[in-house]
Amino acid sequence: MTAAIGQPIVFNRLAVVGIGHIGSSVARAARAHGLVGELVAHDSNAATLARVRELGIVDRAEADPAAAVDGADCVIICAPLGTYGAIARAIGPHLGEGTVVTDVGSVKRGVLEVLGEAVPEGRPIVPGHPLAGTEHSGPDAGFVELFLGRWCILTPPEDADAAAVARVSALWRGMGSMVEIMSVEHHDKVLAITSHLPHLIAYTIVGTAVDLGEDLKQEVIKFSATGFRDFTRIAASNPVMWRDVFLTNKDAVLEVIQRFTEDLTALQRAIRRGDGETLEDLFKRTRDIRRGVIEAKQA
Amino acid sequence: MTAAIGQPIVFNRLAVVGIGHIGSSVARAARAHGLVGELVAHDSNAATLARVRELGIVDRAEADPAAAVDGADCVIICAPLGTYGAIARAIGPHLGEGTVVTDVGSVKRGVLEVLGEAVPEGRPIVPGHPLAGTEHSGPDAGFVELFLGRWCILTPPEDADAAAVARVSALWRGMGSMVEIMSVEHHDKVLAITSHLPHLIAYTIVGTAVDLGEDLKQEVIKFSATGFRDFTRIAASNPVMWRDVFLTNKDAVLEVIQRFTEDLTALQRAIRRGDGETLEDLFKRTRDIRRGVIEAKQA
Repeated sequence: MTAAIGQPIVFNRLAVVGIGHIGSSVARAARAHGLVGELVAHDSNAATLARVRELGIVDRAEADPAAAVDGADCVIICAPLGTYGAIARAIGPHLGEGTVVTDVGSVKRGVLEVLGEAVPEGRPIVPGHPLAGTEHSGPDAGFVELFLGRWCILTPPEDADAAAVARVSALWRGMGSMVEIMSVEHHDKVLAITSHLPHLIAYTIVGTAVDLGEDLKQEVIKFSATGFRDFTRIAASNPVMWRDVFLTNKDAVLEVIQRFTEDLTALQRAIRRGDGETLEDLFKRTRDIRRGVIEAKQA
Repeated sequence: MTAAIGQPIVFNRLAVVGIGHIGSSVARAARAHGLVGELVAHDSNAATLARVRELGIVDRAEADPAAAVDGADCVIICAPLGTYGAIARAIGPHLGEGTVVTDVGSVKRGVLEVLGEAVPEGRPIVPGHPLAGTEHSGPDAGFVELFLGRWCILTPPEDADAAAVARVSALWRGMGSMVEIMSVEHHDKVLAITSHLPHLIAYTIVGTAVDLGEDLKQEVIKFSATGFRDFTRIAASNPVMWRDVFLTNKDAVLEVIQRFTEDLTALQRAIRRGDGETLEDLFKRTRDIRRGVIEAKQA
């Protein structure tokens, strides 16, 4: 398949390893914007692979990871963090010289180390994380516009291959994203606040409802249009992906939970004491953050 | 002003006391659906009242609460819970025989008692709570469709005037809502879970970000499209209204905070121990609740 006329091709053959919600969005967007010459996909789930063939969003869907990456000049891993080691071992020996290896994982700590163990020298690794996604999973949930106007953070090592970083950046920019480069540690700290804690809290609050008696649970669902339903959307996200996020970014997540718990305890105390001033004061200050989010066009 | 042709008028003159986001939506929807003969508004804030006159959404905007309710056959209080006592004292002596008094407050505990102290006999009180609203405040934020397809819960006393309950129900149904009748205690318990806890959590998590250093705060805003921004929307809700909710529904809210904290502690422990099974198991179960919300058409 040839790319759209007039678009610069970034990679001649892109292999998408793991083609669920994010992977299939990468495939769709890369093709729609003419960023790749050929698209090959691999997934360990046979049903997913069969569905990808039906959807016709890649040129080839390979059950064998080695066959999927053979001849590719870029491999993008779009699978849960816990599978990275096995994936690296399966594809490592089959990566051609100069092939760029990247990913979309939500935690960057350890990615370079885990992939580096099985990826031979001369195949530059450029870890990445698009800040995009919905609560839906699977290849049907992907769409071309997912990355449009959203940030993609890259965390290349200090001695990274500059050309490889530039090509991965070009891929994301071509799909409509804005690219930011930062250190692994900083990424994991910022994301613990903006993403990991909110998801954990949403899972917790919806989990509290799961454990209610059946009658009350049905009422909570019926009357959810009052705050609760927004949490149910977040708490419908991919369970395996999020399990791996919390296990991988453990230290940063535990630290923000600690801070959050302290702040919640302070509000709990204000409610118990009838201290309306403390409550109103905080509730006013949080509005400014919302204003910031709207101004930053992230609302 | 006459109502739209062919619509049944529920009240000849509706007085909206407190005309911000909810009050102005009631005025707009009641007029659009031809449910009231005449619309009068009062607000303690002169600027709000001036704006309501400019918007032309009521027939009269009165700075004097007594003048606003004079001759009305229904008064709907759409002001923060903490103002109910003062409002009742100001309007009580001016309510004509048979005038129906209702409200839209998010907590039903105490409403009957506080209003009952100053509202004379023969003016039936039918407390109500539309489960609708956005994070925006003020009369400009109101719109006709706010209550469409949303629940409105009424908590009339056991010996309530049946005709008054039927008329208030007709008003909400006429504005597109579904009406449910329940006890005050049950309402406050269900709403503590579906609404009050989610708002408190959102305020807490966004408050945690408020206290970050300026650089990190700007990054949290920039990269908020990953869970955090949904919380900023909820945490932009009316500060005074929510202060009063937490102070009024104190016992039920403290109980659900306690349950939430226990559940969060269990997840925190699972993360610390690297117990992926516990995490994945919960993250799978919360998906069912989302499915329920979607099936109940509350998503």
